[in-house]
Amino acid sequence: MRVLTGIQPSGALHIGNYFGAIKQMVDLQEKSDLFIFIPNYHALTSLKDGVALKNNTLDAAINFMSLGIDPTKATLWAQSDVKEVLELYWVLSGYTPMGLLERAHGYKDKVAKGIAANHSLFSYPVLMAADILLYDAEVIPVGKDQIQHVEITRDIAIKFNNEFGDIFKVPDFKVDDNVATVPGLDGAKMSKSYGNTIDIFCSEKELKKATSRIVTDSTPMEEPKDYLTCNVFALAKLFLEKDEVVALQARYQKGGEGYGHFKAYLATLIWDYFAQAREKRAYYVEHKDEVFAILDEGAAKARAIASEKMRVVRDLVGIYR
Amino acid sequence: MRVLTGIQPSGALHIGNYFGAIKQMVDLQEKSDLFIFIPNYHALTSLKDGVALKNNTLDAAINFMSLGIDPTKATLWAQSDVKEVLELYWVLSGYTPMGLLERAHGYKDKVAKGIAANHSLFSYPVLMAADILLYDAEVIPVGKDQIQHVEITRDIAIKFNNEFGDIFKVPDFKVDDNVATVPGLDGAKMSKSYGNTIDIFCSEKELKKATSRIVTDSTPMEEPKDYLTCNVFALAKLFLEKDEVVALQARYQKGGEGYGHFKAYLATLIWDYFAQAREKRAYYVEHKDEVFAILDEGAAKARAIASEKMRVVRDLVGIYR
Repeated sequence: MRVLTGIQPSGALHIGNYFGAIKQMVDLQEKSDLFIFIPNYHALTSLKDGVALKNNTLDAAINFMSLGIDPTKATLWAQSDVKEVLELYWVLSGYTPMGLLERAHGYKDKVAKGIAANHSLFSYPVLMAADILLYDAEVIPVGKDQIQHVEITRDIAIKFNNEFGDIFKVPDFKVDDNVATVPGLDGAKMSKSYGNTIDIFCSEKELKKATSRIVTDSTPMEEPKDYLTCNVFALAKLFLEKDEVVALQARYQKGGEGYGHFKAYLATLIWDYFAQAREKRAYYVEHKDEVFAILDEGAAKARAIASEKMRVVRDLVGIYR
Repeated sequence: MRVLTGIQPSGALHIGNYFGAIKQMVDLQEKSDLFIFIPNYHALTSLKDGVALKNNTLDAAINFMSLGIDPTKATLWAQSDVKEVLELYWVLSGYTPMGLLERAHGYKDKVAKGIAANHSLFSYPVLMAADILLYDAEVIPVGKDQIQHVEITRDIAIKFNNEFGDIFKVPDFKVDDNVATVPGLDGAKMSKSYGNTIDIFCSEKELKKATSRIVTDSTPMEEPKDYLTCNVFALAKLFLEKDEVVALQARYQKGGEGYGHFKAYLATLIWDYFAQAREKRAYYVEHKDEVFAILDEGAAKARAIASEKMRVVRDLVGIYR
C-alpha cells in the first residue's frame, strides 16, 4: 500500500511535530510503501526568503533522517526535483471547477488571517492533487484540517477518470485519532505559530530554558500536586514507559518537590530521548553530499513513476509528443 | 527587439487570421527577434480532445511555415517542449494577487458565455505572464481583448522585480491599428465562432462554395453596384494592388456583371494568392519529420534562454539546487 506524505521545509522541528507526525511516519515505513517528499514548491506560497527556503529544504531531509526516516525503506525526495508534478498540476487545472477551490477552508482561513491572497495560495489544492495522483498514492495521512484537500484531490481524480478511464488511483485520507496532542509551554497545542514550542534540536541550555518556561499552577513545593492538569507531566509522559509514568504520578501526589524539579527531569528526558537523533544530525550536517545523494536517489525513483504516468496523461489530453 | 507571439493550435486557418495576424508576423520576422510559440498548454483550457490537440499543434507549425514564417528568421516552438514555463508559472503565482485575476475580462467573459469555470481558465493570465517573462520579450503584439492580459504580466513582473531586482523585462503590448478587419461571409467580423469563415487551405471546390455564400444585396445584374457596401469587394481588395482595386471598382460602377461574377473572381484571387503556401503545406504534410526537427531546434533555442532565466529565478526564490 502506497502512503504519501509531505514534510514542510519550515525550519526547526519541535516535539509536537515529532509525536504528532514524525513518529507515525517512522512506523509507517516498516509496513507500507512510504513516499515522503519535501514540498518546497508549496512552501513558496508563504516563505519569501530564498536562502531560508533552500536551507530549510535540506534541513527537512536531514532532520527526518536523523529522527528515523530510513531512505532504504521510504522514498524521500524534494518536490522540485520531479518537474512532472507541475505539468500534471496544469493538466489537472482543466478538470478543477473553480467552486472546488473557492470552497476550500484552508484558503478562506488564511485570507481571514490576513495572509495576502496570492494565486499560489488559492491553487495550492490543485498542486497537492498533482503530488498525490502523480504517484498513485493510495493513502494520505492527514490532520483534520487537511481532509478537505484530499477530498478535492478525489473530486479531481474522479472527474479526470470519468473523461479518460481509470488513470488515477482515487486516494483515501487517514486521520490518526491515536496521535497524542502535545501541549506547548503555555498549555495550548504546541505550534510554531503560537511561539510555545520545545525544539528537538536546540542546545541543552536552550532546552532547559524552554522547559523552565512551562506554565504551571502555584501549588507550594511541600504540597501534593495534580499531575492531571500539569503541562510538565503531560509532556514528560510522552517520553516514559508505563511504570515510569506511575512513578512520576507518585512523586506529584507525594509533595515535597517543586515544579522546578519536574521541569529539570523533563529536560533530561527530552535530552536523552533525542541523543541518537542529535548524533545522526551532526553527521549529516557534516556530510551534506550524502544527503544530496539520498535525495537524488529518491527523486530518480519518484521520477520513474512520474514520467510513466505523465506519458499516459500527455497522450490522453493531447500534449504534443 | 524581441517580439513574442503565440499561435493557437485551433485547427483550420481562415483568411481573417491571415490578414489579421499572420501577415504581420511574416513582416515582423524581418525586422525583429521574433519568438513564436504554439501554446498547446493554454489550449488545454478549452480543447478536451487529445487527438485533435496533437494534430492541431503540428498543423499550426505547418500552416504558419507554409504561410511564410521562416524558422531561420523566427524562433518557432511548441510551448510544451520548454517545461521551464510551468515552473515559472508556479513561481509567479506567488506574486499574483487574486484580485488581478478576478478582474480579468477574458475570464469573466468566458464564464458569462457559459464556458465551465475551471481553474486553468482562471489562471491563464499567469501562464501567459510566464510565457512572456521567461524569454525577456519586449513587445507583445495583441488584439484589444488581450491588452489586459499583458497589463497583468506587467504587474506581476513589477511585483517580482520590486522584491528581487531587475530580473524580468517589463513588456509592452502593441496593438496594430492598421490591421485590416476582414469581413466574414455574412459581413460580420470573420471568426470561427461565427461560422462565417473562408479557410485558407480548403479545396478549390470548398472555396467556390464558401465565396458563393457571401451575403450581398439584390441589385439586378445590369445595374451599377455599390462596392463600398459589398462584402465581396471588401474581401477582394485584400488581395489586390491599387490599380487592380480601381479596375474592380469600375466594374462595380459599370453594371452588367452580377455578384456571381465577382464571387468567382474573388475565389480565383484567393486560390492564386495562396498557391505557394498550398505547395509548401503539401510538402510539410509529407515531411513531418522535418517539421518536428524544426520545432526541436526552436525549442532548444528557447530552452537555452529559459533555463538560464530559471537558474536565476530558482536561486532567488530558494528552489533547492
